[in-house]
Amino acid sequence: MQNFDFHNPTKVLFGEGVISRLPEVLPDGPILLLSGGGSIKSNGVYDQVMNTLIGRVVFEVSGVRPNPTFEKCMEAVEIIRKEKIGFILAVGGGSVVDSAKFISFAALYEGNAEDILRRQDTLVKKAVPFGAVLTLPATGSEMNCYFVISQGEEKLSGGNPLLYPQFSILDPKVTATLDKRQIGNGVVDAFVHVMEQYLTYPSDAPLQDRFAESILLTLIEEGPKSFRNPQDYKSRANYMWCATMALSGVVGSGVPHDWSTHAIGHELTALYGLDHAQTLAIVFPAMMWVMKDEKNAKINQYAERVWKIADHQDPFQGAFRKTVDFFETLGLPTKLSAYGIKEDVALKVISRFEKRGFQPMGEKGLVTLDKIREVLRVASQ
Amino acid sequence: MQNFDFHNPTKVLFGEGVISRLPEVLPDGPILLLSGGGSIKSNGVYDQVMNTLIGRVVFEVSGVRPNPTFEKCMEAVEIIRKEKIGFILAVGGGSVVDSAKFISFAALYEGNAEDILRRQDTLVKKAVPFGAVLTLPATGSEMNCYFVISQGEEKLSGGNPLLYPQFSILDPKVTATLDKRQIGNGVVDAFVHVMEQYLTYPSDAPLQDRFAESILLTLIEEGPKSFRNPQDYKSRANYMWCATMALSGVVGSGVPHDWSTHAIGHELTALYGLDHAQTLAIVFPAMMWVMKDEKNAKINQYAERVWKIADHQDPFQGAFRKTVDFFETLGLPTKLSAYGIKEDVALKVISRFEKRGFQPMGEKGLVTLDKIREVLRVASQ
Repeated sequence: MQNFDFHNPTKVLFGEGVISRLPEVLPDGPILLLSGGGSIKSNGVYDQVMNTLIGRVVFEVSGVRPNPTFEKCMEAVEIIRKEKIGFILAVGGGSVVDSAKFISFAALYEGNAEDILRRQDTLVKKAVPFGAVLTLPATGSEMNCYFVISQGEEKLSGGNPLLYPQFSILDPKVTATLDKRQIGNGVVDAFVHVMEQYLTYPSDAPLQDRFAESILLTLIEEGPKSFRNPQDYKSRANYMWCATMALSGVVGSGVPHDWSTHAIGHELTALYGLDHAQTLAIVFPAMMWVMKDEKNAKINQYAERVWKIADHQDPFQGAFRKTVDFFETLGLPTKLSAYGIKEDVALKVISRFEKRGFQPMGEKGLVTLDKIREVLRVASQ
Repeated sequence: MQNFDFHNPTKVLFGEGVISRLPEVLPDGPILLLSGGGSIKSNGVYDQVMNTLIGRVVFEVSGVRPNPTFEKCMEAVEIIRKEKIGFILAVGGGSVVDSAKFISFAALYEGNAEDILRRQDTLVKKAVPFGAVLTLPATGSEMNCYFVISQGEEKLSGGNPLLYPQFSILDPKVTATLDKRQIGNGVVDAFVHVMEQYLTYPSDAPLQDRFAESILLTLIEEGPKSFRNPQDYKSRANYMWCATMALSGVVGSGVPHDWSTHAIGHELTALYGLDHAQTLAIVFPAMMWVMKDEKNAKINQYAERVWKIADHQDPFQGAFRKTVDFFETLGLPTKLSAYGIKEDVALKVISRFEKRGFQPMGEKGLVTLDKIREVLRVASQ
């Protein structure tokens, strides 16, 4: 096991009806209510939240979109500064929570807020506190300190220990109005989050491995149920808790990570507007294929423990096929062609990496530009 | 899944050499260094800690014993009040950390400190902040808000969200000087902590179940290695992280609990001075035996997933035998007679429960006085 720090101070309220407990965790003073494209108005979450805020000063910024933008965040920053708002309440999915994090930093930063996106976030020493009412289980942003914000054609990620939500309110009931695409995306996103912390090389961390396998097995069991039946509260609750735990630190502490699938996926979203989870469904299996020798030991473990591939079968082939089938069953094709994207994608992606000054990625720095080219070739076939 | 709150703000620094990072997490001002029976002086931990405290005002209280007492805690409370100390640094095992929690509460409580032990802890609204340098993995106290303190012949437990350690420093290397009894006890303690949150009834919480099984499987794998070889850093690290995770909330959130083995075990310690883990090794298998019908579904799951009992074998008999063997391999006999205790123990224990006004225990309130009598009869045979 590697040395590690583990610190996750977010308070989670979980279960049916917990939105009504907002007054327990919300501090006094004016708040900014940040939300997305309007689904919270049709699914009743907005009313549930506003009922707990009667008599309070609430400013609202809505319209945060998937792949949330720097410009939208800066709208909220202006209001926070002007109105001297001391707390942000993010009501929505991962995009809204990610935006709250960036806003929280940017509002108190005296320099150019773009610096924060250019990984100068160590310059920022304070943040506006914030909390979340989660409506879409997927990114895990509700219980970690990371964000991804888009600016122009770039998806830029950041993170800082100041950016844990003070609280996150998770009522699985509110997921009943999500459509199949959102659920399929959410399950695949959570699954790949775990894989990026698991499918590396053995590092004498059997508990973290088993925690990872626990989430994978539960997503495999509960994900399709959640996908098929919006009214299956039990399954939605389990999927929701899996997605939160996936990026909370319990899987990733003390072990090597490999975020190269995410890095390549971000490029596909920026170039072609694919959903984040669609890009993961495309890139992850191809990455597994290309890096199968380097990841051999963990692929065998994954095949045996997660997919129960029998001894006489080839573990890689078995695990690869099962992974692809799982993603496709959830409505996410795993080939670029299914999204109408042709093979010249590799040229474009490589050129974007080169422009920024590329550093090899992956748990051992073995994901070179050649490997990325190969990954995108496999994903095109 | 039941509704639940999850909030664990303790910051963990984990790995070889992390004691040297104490200055990163320790606030300014005078501190109270609380420790146990002196092992930290012989194993070098005291020197490692003091090297980080050069130039600081440090008061010391040592001599906290296993089953730490109210009276010892009050010694520390007096010093904290007199010297206006603002931070407690607990250096030791679970007894020292538990004491720090009680002291932390009692020092700022204006009433009679005994009230806190009599479960009047809701009266207390503030606590002296504290942190821990852990030397013995077992109780999980380093990452939760619970404590057990002895007064006279009573072991009294409490807990409060104010009582999470600000930080806990876990260097597996410092466990190399522990003796076999301490390691055997620690592994069994952590194992039974998980079982009390797992072996109840199915509650549609597959992730929590798998997290529990992850810790059990890892303790079964790593516990005996840690027991046999003090120099096996890798195994000690895994055992240490298992013990911390066991009572951190990841296993017990949203599921029923059964703390009746602990409750009966506390009586055996109070009456006969047995080590806490010895009492668990005696009571837990007997409880499993007596409650086998009520716990049937989870016993079958435990047999299959944790002990891999084959389909043609009796799951209860298989899991029971494996559990007993596991405890005994770690040097903990599972029968009262092995500790020289005769069957009249049931009379004494029942009478103590009756005197306090007994409420049936267990996940469904089915552990009555009759069941306790039966448990102690089984444990005597």
